[in-house]
Amino acid sequence: MRIPNHIGIIPDGNRRWAVKNGLTKEMGYDKGLLPGVELFKCCKEIGIKELTFYGFTVDNTKRPSIQKNAFIKACVKAVEMLSKENASLLVIGNYDSPIFPKELLPFTTRKDFGKGGMKVNFLVNYGWEWDLMNLKDNQGHSRNSIYNTIRSHDISRVDLIIRWGGRRRLSGFLPVQSVYSDFYVVNDMWPDFSKDQFNDALNWYSEQDITLGG
Amino acid sequence: MRIPNHIGIIPDGNRRWAVKNGLTKEMGYDKGLLPGVELFKCCKEIGIKELTFYGFTVDNTKRPSIQKNAFIKACVKAVEMLSKENASLLVIGNYDSPIFPKELLPFTTRKDFGKGGMKVNFLVNYGWEWDLMNLKDNQGHSRNSIYNTIRSHDISRVDLIIRWGGRRRLSGFLPVQSVYSDFYVVNDMWPDFSKDQFNDALNWYSEQDITLGG
Repeated sequence: MRIPNHIGIIPDGNRRWAVKNGLTKEMGYDKGLLPGVELFKCCKEIGIKELTFYGFTVDNTKRPSIQKNAFIKACVKAVEMLSKENASLLVIGNYDSPIFPKELLPFTTRKDFGKGGMKVNFLVNYGWEWDLMNLKDNQGHSRNSIYNTIRSHDISRVDLIIRWGGRRRLSGFLPVQSVYSDFYVVNDMWPDFSKDQFNDALNWYSEQDITLGG
Repeated sequence: MRIPNHIGIIPDGNRRWAVKNGLTKEMGYDKGLLPGVELFKCCKEIGIKELTFYGFTVDNTKRPSIQKNAFIKACVKAVEMLSKENASLLVIGNYDSPIFPKELLPFTTRKDFGKGGMKVNFLVNYGWEWDLMNLKDNQGHSRNSIYNTIRSHDISRVDLIIRWGGRRRLSGFLPVQSVYSDFYVVNDMWPDFSKDQFNDALNWYSEQDITLGG
């Protein structure tokens, strides 16, 4: 089976899951924590080299503050949970903003935890325009110079993006690294994550031919 | 029914269609011309304001020259066919390159044909990195300054992208304008275009809720 090097995860549907299960919207985010660790373990098991989670975006912070506080807290917890595993962790996002959680500042340069290993990236207070705006300082004109000068330059090209929650859109997820990504959508909500969904995505990916436009 | 303002079309699968129908690969491109005009008419009928066709990319030009010549010729013909309709036409791509067809140079600034009307954009010798590299001259830091300074700034945000040919990837299609796009995939090959496929995509789009990340 052909395995992707780098998987991007859009863990959507927490609020819809909460409402469907008789909770208030903001209570959904916590239900996404264990799925995240489980997915991380699935990826390690099969030898994925890099994994990027879409935490929250600058766009998301327009939501009601009770929700905003809940998803920020969930992101902090998620990174803390992963820092107890063997992984090479990096948090990327606009950390100049007061919305960026202080607890995650130490993670904004890549660091090995445990025995290190798989790269795990977490987008926190990420904005696609924030990411691209570094390009204005760019001197070159090549593809590599773009990859090297975006703010998220420490995140490599994404081979497979899996989105939970049924929506078929990227919602600003790493526009440069996802230019050639294969995009798989799981209709279930993220808190209903199962290993089967992940395996279905991998099986589907394995059948795609990768051309990079050539 | 909620109608998108701007639809992006990735008309993929011409070569696979040709092989399946006993032709050589390069013979598939010509079979995509009439579907393009038919789709254009469908869009006019329901009041779409802007339509962007993915012609060919800089990546595509790495293909064997018999194929390259065929898709370049098909793009020239497509633009010529649309210039006989009522439309406001624009061709965007790297026209500094010798690969850019000279016949299309007069179309690189937007021009009304017939009675004008719907904006129709054609990406010809387009490259996502070529598009983004203008950002280096950018002075501002806002979302609008990005929309205004990419090379394809005359193309607006895309609401719905429809890709024929079964592949679930953007392949470099307007990375900035497609950040929030809903993405619909038709499994049939582009030369097998039918109005039903288009209507299915519109019906699906109509049921999506648009949040722009909020």
